[in-house]
Amino acid sequence: MTDLLDHLRTAVGADQVLTDDADTGAYVVDWTGVHAGRALAVVRPGSTDEVAAVVTACHEAGVAIVPQGGNTGLVGGGVPDGSGDQVVVSLGRMRRVRDVDPVAGTITVDAGVVLADVQAAASDAGRLFPMSLGSEGSCTIGGNLATNAGGTAVLRYGMTRELVLGLEVVLPDGRVWDGLRALRKDNTGYDLTQLFVGSEGTLGVITGAVLRLFPATPRHATAWVAVPSVDAAVSLLGTAQQHAGAHLATFEIANRQALDLVLAHLPGASDPLAEPSEWYVLVELAGASSDGGLDDALEAILGSAVDEGLATDAAIAGSPAQRSALWALREGISEAQKVEGATLKHDVTLPIADLAAWATSIGATLDRILPGVRPVTYGHVGDGNLHYNLSAPVGLDDDLRAAAADLTTAIYDSVAAGHGSISAEHGLGRTKAVAGASYKSGVEVDLMRALKAALDPAGLMNPGVLLP
Amino acid sequence: MTDLLDHLRTAVGADQVLTDDADTGAYVVDWTGVHAGRALAVVRPGSTDEVAAVVTACHEAGVAIVPQGGNTGLVGGGVPDGSGDQVVVSLGRMRRVRDVDPVAGTITVDAGVVLADVQAAASDAGRLFPMSLGSEGSCTIGGNLATNAGGTAVLRYGMTRELVLGLEVVLPDGRVWDGLRALRKDNTGYDLTQLFVGSEGTLGVITGAVLRLFPATPRHATAWVAVPSVDAAVSLLGTAQQHAGAHLATFEIANRQALDLVLAHLPGASDPLAEPSEWYVLVELAGASSDGGLDDALEAILGSAVDEGLATDAAIAGSPAQRSALWALREGISEAQKVEGATLKHDVTLPIADLAAWATSIGATLDRILPGVRPVTYGHVGDGNLHYNLSAPVGLDDDLRAAAADLTTAIYDSVAAGHGSISAEHGLGRTKAVAGASYKSGVEVDLMRALKAALDPAGLMNPGVLLP
Repeated sequence: MTDLLDHLRTAVGADQVLTDDADTGAYVVDWTGVHAGRALAVVRPGSTDEVAAVVTACHEAGVAIVPQGGNTGLVGGGVPDGSGDQVVVSLGRMRRVRDVDPVAGTITVDAGVVLADVQAAASDAGRLFPMSLGSEGSCTIGGNLATNAGGTAVLRYGMTRELVLGLEVVLPDGRVWDGLRALRKDNTGYDLTQLFVGSEGTLGVITGAVLRLFPATPRHATAWVAVPSVDAAVSLLGTAQQHAGAHLATFEIANRQALDLVLAHLPGASDPLAEPSEWYVLVELAGASSDGGLDDALEAILGSAVDEGLATDAAIAGSPAQRSALWALREGISEAQKVEGATLKHDVTLPIADLAAWATSIGATLDRILPGVRPVTYGHVGDGNLHYNLSAPVGLDDDLRAAAADLTTAIYDSVAAGHGSISAEHGLGRTKAVAGASYKSGVEVDLMRALKAALDPAGLMNPGVLLP
Repeated sequence: MTDLLDHLRTAVGADQVLTDDADTGAYVVDWTGVHAGRALAVVRPGSTDEVAAVVTACHEAGVAIVPQGGNTGLVGGGVPDGSGDQVVVSLGRMRRVRDVDPVAGTITVDAGVVLADVQAAASDAGRLFPMSLGSEGSCTIGGNLATNAGGTAVLRYGMTRELVLGLEVVLPDGRVWDGLRALRKDNTGYDLTQLFVGSEGTLGVITGAVLRLFPATPRHATAWVAVPSVDAAVSLLGTAQQHAGAHLATFEIANRQALDLVLAHLPGASDPLAEPSEWYVLVELAGASSDGGLDDALEAILGSAVDEGLATDAAIAGSPAQRSALWALREGISEAQKVEGATLKHDVTLPIADLAAWATSIGATLDRILPGVRPVTYGHVGDGNLHYNLSAPVGLDDDLRAAAADLTTAIYDSVAAGHGSISAEHGLGRTKAVAGASYKSGVEVDLMRALKAALDPAGLMNPGVLLP
C-alpha cells in the first residue's frame, strides 16, 4: 500500500493525504456515532482532475473508495468500514460556485459546496435554491445529490432529484463523465443523471452539478399550530392546499415528546402556546415580494381549521425573529434528541391517507416490545414522511439498545405491509443495506445488482453501502 | 419460427397474433411515413402476464421485440426494421385504468391507456393529469413514458419523467418488475423508474404506471399574441412569469409560416388578428375555480407587453369555443405541415437566452444550403425547445429530400456548438440514434452501452433504437 499512498500524495499533495488517527478521526465516525470505522487514508482532492487521479490510483491498486461530503448522513453511507483498508475521498475542499445564471435559472457548483452556500449564492443573484435541511450549514451538495436528500421544501419543490439538471461524475475507473447540462429538456438517451442521484457513492464520485433555481420568495407567513391528531394534521394539509395553493411551502409535524426535548435541551427555546397539545404543525406560506395576500391566506386557513376542529390553537410569527424561533423548534429536534440520550432513528413514508392509523397502531406495538419507549415523532407530513425516532424510557438507554433490532423490525414490517418505504430520504447506507434488500423483490435486487456490476465491475465504490 | 408463432398464439390467443400484411400494415409504418418496416408478427397481449409470456417466448427464440404504443412517435422508435424478423408487441389492448386516488393524488394505469383517457379519468375524479400533446387522442401513456414525452404543459408541470411515481415493466428475459409505488419519497436504492422512462423500449416493456395527479385548473385565460421576434417572446415570458407566477401554464411560439399552413389546410381555421406578424405566442394562465384574477393578470401581461414593445397585438379568448379555436391553431401545425408536403423535422433545445440568436443564424445558414427553404418554427419557447421543421420551397419537395442530410447536419452542429440538445422531447428512435451517439462523449456512450448490456445482454429489446 506504500505505492498507493505515494500515488495519492502525488495526485493531491502530501498535505491532503491524512493517515494519522488524530487527523482522520473526524472522517471515519458518522454523525450518529453508530458507525466508527478506520481508513487507510483520507484524501482531500481540490479539483475534479485530482479526484480522477485519486480514483484511478485506487482502481489500479484494487482499493475501495468511500466518497464523503459533509459527513452529516444518518445511515453510515459516508464513512469507511472497520477494516482500515478503504480510502475516504472527502470533497470538502471543492467549494467553488462555478456559475450562476439567474435568467436561465441555473447554478453550477462543485460537489463540496455547503448547502447553505448554494442557497446564499442563489439568494445573492435574486433567486431561490429551495432545498433546506437541518444540517444545511455543514452538509454538502454532493452528499445531498448522492443521497437524493429531502428536507422541508420537498412539498413544494420536490426531492434533490427534481432540482438537478446535470452532473459531473468521476467513474469507478477514474474517467470523468461530463454531464453538466443546463437544459430542462434533453431526450437523447438513458437518464444517467438520475441514475447517479441517490446511488450513495456506489457508482462513482459526483464532483459537480447544475442545479435549478426558482423565483425568490422573500415574503413568508408562518404559524406553529396545535392539532389534536395526525388525522387532523392530514386534513389541515388539505385545507391549507385549498387556500394557499402553490404558496404552501412548509407543512411539518412534531409530537409533544419532540417539543419537550427541544424545550429541555435547546437554549432559549420556549413553548409558543399556553396549553400543551399532543401534536403540532409548522405551516409556512411563501411568496414573491408582490404576493400581498399571504397573511390573509394563513389566517383563513387557521380560522377554518379551528372551526372544523382540526386545530386548537396557533401562534403566528409577527416578525422575522419570531419566524426563526418557530423554525428553531422544528430544526432543533434531531440535536435535542441526541443530547437526551440513546436514539433509534427511523425515516418512513406511508400513503398519506394511512399515516394516522399507522402511527397509532405502531405506537401500541412498540410499547409492548419496550414498555415506556418514547416515540419522538416529527417530519414531513405533507410528503407522508415521518421521522419516527425512539428515545429510551427515562434512564433506560441500555434497554433501548437491547430491544433495537426488535423495535426496528416491527416498524419495517408494518411499513412494508402498508406499501410504504423504510427510507424516505436518508438512503440505505450501511445501516439499512440488508433491510433494504430484504423488503424488495428478488427481481428488483437483481436489477440493482446488474446496474452496480455494469458501472463498477470491480466493486470498489463504497462497498457495503446501499447493496449488502 | 413456426414454433415461436405457436408459442405466441398460445400466449395471447390466435386472433391477437397478426401476420398478414393486410393486418400488420398499420403497425409497421410510423406516423411520419419515413420508417416503413416489416414484422414477423404483430402481437397484441391483453394483460401484463400475456406480455411476460410473449417476451419470454421471444427471448427463448432469440427474436427481437419492438414495443409499440399508439404509434405516434416521430423518430421511428416504435416500428420494426425492414428485416421481417422482429416481433411488434402492441400494448393497445391494455387500456384499463386500474385505480384513481384523488386524495393521494395518484392514478394507476395500464400502459395502453390513451393519454386523453388518462386525462379524462383524472378529470372525472376532480383532478388534473397535466400532460398534453397534439397526439393525445391516440398516443398511449406507455409510449409517453418510454419516450419521456414533453408537450405543452412542461413549463408548469415538467416532462413525463416528473409525473411518474412507479412503473411495472416486463424485463427482456420475461420477468416482471413490480415497481408500482405510489410514494413521493422512497430512497431505497437506484432509481429504476427513471432509468426506464425515456429508454424507448430498449430495456423492457412498460406495462403499467402510477402517475401523479394535480389540483384541477378549470379556469383559463388564453391569448394569441403577435410578437415581433423570438427575442421579444423570451422577454414576454419573463413578464408573464412575473405577473402570473405559478398560474402560467402555457407559453408556445409559432412563426407566420406555421400559421399560414394551418390557415391553408385546417378546415375552419381563421387568423384571429387583423395584421400579420412574423411570430406569435399562445399564452394561457390556468387556475382553480377559486382563482378569480386570471383575466386581470393576463390583461396586465399584455398591457405591459405592448408598452414595452414586446407585443404588437393580441386576441383574448372570450369563450371556451374561442379558446379551442386558438389552441387549434397551435395544435394543427404538425398535421398542416404534413398535408403541405415533404417535411424535415427537428426538435431542438437551446439555452433560452440563446434561442433568438440561434434561430436567426440558422435560418441564414439553411437558406444558403437550399435557397427558399421554409422554416416552419413552433414549440415550447418556455422550455427553450423549438420544433424547427423545414418545408420545401414551394413545389420542390425532391430538393428538400436531396438536401436533407446537409440541412440536418447544419442544424445539429449548431445546436451542439450552443450546448443544446438535438432531441428535446421526441427521443432518438431510429432516426437519430447514430446522430445522438455522435454528439456525445465516448464516456457517455460507453455508460449507455454498459446499461443496455446489463439489462438486455442478448440485445433483443428494440435493437437499432436509441443506440446505434
